[in-house]
Amino acid sequence: MIRKTEGGVTAAKGFLAASCAAAIKYQGRDDMAMICSEVPCAVAGVFTSNRVKAAPVQWDMQIVRDRKSAQAVVVNSGIANAATGEKGLAQCEETAARAAELLQLPRDAVLVGSTGVIGPLLPMDRICSGIGMLAGALSSTAEAATAASRAIMTTDTVNKEFALAFDLPSADGKSMVPVHLGGMCKGSGMIHPNMCTMLAYLTTDCAIDQALLQRALSEVVQDTFNMLSVDGDTSTNDTLLVLANGCAGNRSIAQEGADYDAFKEALYALCREMTRAMAADGEGATHLIEMRVRGADTKQHARELAKSVVCSSLVKAMVFGGDANCGRILCALGYAGVDFDPALPEVWLVGEKESICFYSGGAVLDFDEETAARLMAAKEVRFDCDMHMGAEEATAWGCDLTHEYVTINGDYRS
Amino acid sequence: MIRKTEGGVTAAKGFLAASCAAAIKYQGRDDMAMICSEVPCAVAGVFTSNRVKAAPVQWDMQIVRDRKSAQAVVVNSGIANAATGEKGLAQCEETAARAAELLQLPRDAVLVGSTGVIGPLLPMDRICSGIGMLAGALSSTAEAATAASRAIMTTDTVNKEFALAFDLPSADGKSMVPVHLGGMCKGSGMIHPNMCTMLAYLTTDCAIDQALLQRALSEVVQDTFNMLSVDGDTSTNDTLLVLANGCAGNRSIAQEGADYDAFKEALYALCREMTRAMAADGEGATHLIEMRVRGADTKQHARELAKSVVCSSLVKAMVFGGDANCGRILCALGYAGVDFDPALPEVWLVGEKESICFYSGGAVLDFDEETAARLMAAKEVRFDCDMHMGAEEATAWGCDLTHEYVTINGDYRS
Repeated sequence: MIRKTEGGVTAAKGFLAASCAAAIKYQGRDDMAMICSEVPCAVAGVFTSNRVKAAPVQWDMQIVRDRKSAQAVVVNSGIANAATGEKGLAQCEETAARAAELLQLPRDAVLVGSTGVIGPLLPMDRICSGIGMLAGALSSTAEAATAASRAIMTTDTVNKEFALAFDLPSADGKSMVPVHLGGMCKGSGMIHPNMCTMLAYLTTDCAIDQALLQRALSEVVQDTFNMLSVDGDTSTNDTLLVLANGCAGNRSIAQEGADYDAFKEALYALCREMTRAMAADGEGATHLIEMRVRGADTKQHARELAKSVVCSSLVKAMVFGGDANCGRILCALGYAGVDFDPALPEVWLVGEKESICFYSGGAVLDFDEETAARLMAAKEVRFDCDMHMGAEEATAWGCDLTHEYVTINGDYRS
Repeated sequence: MIRKTEGGVTAAKGFLAASCAAAIKYQGRDDMAMICSEVPCAVAGVFTSNRVKAAPVQWDMQIVRDRKSAQAVVVNSGIANAATGEKGLAQCEETAARAAELLQLPRDAVLVGSTGVIGPLLPMDRICSGIGMLAGALSSTAEAATAASRAIMTTDTVNKEFALAFDLPSADGKSMVPVHLGGMCKGSGMIHPNMCTMLAYLTTDCAIDQALLQRALSEVVQDTFNMLSVDGDTSTNDTLLVLANGCAGNRSIAQEGADYDAFKEALYALCREMTRAMAADGEGATHLIEMRVRGADTKQHARELAKSVVCSSLVKAMVFGGDANCGRILCALGYAGVDFDPALPEVWLVGEKESICFYSGGAVLDFDEETAARLMAAKEVRFDCDMHMGAEEATAWGCDLTHEYVTINGDYRS
């Protein structure tokens, strides 16, 4: 049974975190974070599909692909170190080398992450001072994890950290031991599903084979982070990493089976929470939008239909305005690139205690505008569509399009 | 030589237009328009690729596909007659039948078009009264064409009509005769390239074979209307029609060759003007954005790269804010789905008298912020990217994302 617990990246045994104010770009707040495990970790990752990959993405991809293990992560906010060419890559190497020296680790056991403005190089003197502060401040407390989750924020309005616990057989197989999975993420703008779409760092004390860890992550991301869109822009820096250090003392997961399934279920639950939190905190957002598509002929079609709706500027603006202009949902389903007979779908505006079917039999139905206005005023606006074509389903998450989004992104650099 | 001329849909010989206030949804303005030719016309069309096709789109598609000729068009604004099922189709038939009776034409010689809110049915009593007024008011004057172009507006802030003249050999081959090509279009929101993306009606007195007319239109649309995006939403109602009545007296174009090329060149020039006008008048827009991609390996890749940039919410918001956050251009090129080496492209911010190269050699360059601010303040903000991969090029058009767009679409129905 999966249990929600307090904390974030230090909820799992053997993980430490730290943050500091390095004045990379922001003033008067922490802007660098470090995660470190007491022992080496299996590492899995999923990265942006953008052809212009930021330097830290290139650095981490190589470690995940070739080394498959790591022990620390150094992250900064304010500058993305993207579109910075060879110089940007050299900065990643220098960052990792500096941290490795202080933490007494091999250089390629240090992952790096950056988020912020595309183009500028990092101020390496400040980065190096920051690494010194971070290495001296590592702590296993929940407070350290929370501070780290705040340090990686850019336009996020709330920090995002989550943790779960579940049970697996112990190494000797004689009892059950608690296994922990925690994480922090940031993401508010430049968010669009295509691989993962933000920075997210997960830690677990689960003992699990690296290949299985990667498999579970790659599968779970399809139904969680990849079903999220804030603004349709796939970032240059998207990075999702999970570090597993085995400190829980569980029977190591070396093949698929009940233990793997339990781990994957917990991983899905955590990633889903993180995805919803990022959608709700989309730049300028006042509503989370959830679009569930059922009865699709294939899983992929269900995903494409659901994503098309949460990506629609017109649907997003309508949710902002609280205007149940529901024809726009049909329009967005119609251009999703999935073939269907418009006479088949049935589409609902769904609430906790009341719901409205607003499209059926190929036509928009008359509906009670007052009920619709109540449902559209909810913090989470939920649509549900039954395609009546099969048994596959998918859910996508997004947020409304607001004046504040335009303001934030009209002048992001200053 | 192609010459710009005054007028719109009545610039070509033998075409009449009319408009009237039928109170479909708007009050105190014209909201229905009619175009009619004195003689039967070859008709070609391109329609929305949205799976949910509005009833008038279905009606017109059948005429273009099966009958290939028509003589009149009836258009209303305010209600789109989309997602209206069988009842909506019956309304198209009734509209065409009523107009046909008054104009003494076969019913399937009457094309119909609607634009506005998705979902509601048309008020047929008002539509029928409107048709009566239109049939009684048909005129070949430029004023009638202008009034028609105003009647089809929804959130458009300016009416859009254009006309060109060029010369072709006369029917007897002994001299050159002037041929006219005019048109009107509307489109401001729910505009995204995938087939055509708005209502556009072109008229020409050119004598041309219907198959060639369709071929020219289908080809030209790829580099004009399909390279336009206001908000990424492909409408249910997109319709582009061209009616050719042969009244110019030119040697009929029955095969490819110099005459066909001259006609196609004029058609391209007209469609390009219309596309730019719609981009500039995008909902809430304060700037037109033009993205030219050169040196691509294939034409399709050039189109995809250019479109990705004009569709990016972050690029659009940055143009609104006048902030030369040029890394976002690279980001949007990177997620266009086209494979390229990030070290190759060279990207420019282009003005009439000065230009800035802001990306080259895989990195964002230092550039003069004052010059950039001047270029970003222009009414038309132009980017130019050389991919250094080949010789193909394409241009896409869009507009900035503004507070006004959000306001317009937060409460469109009221």
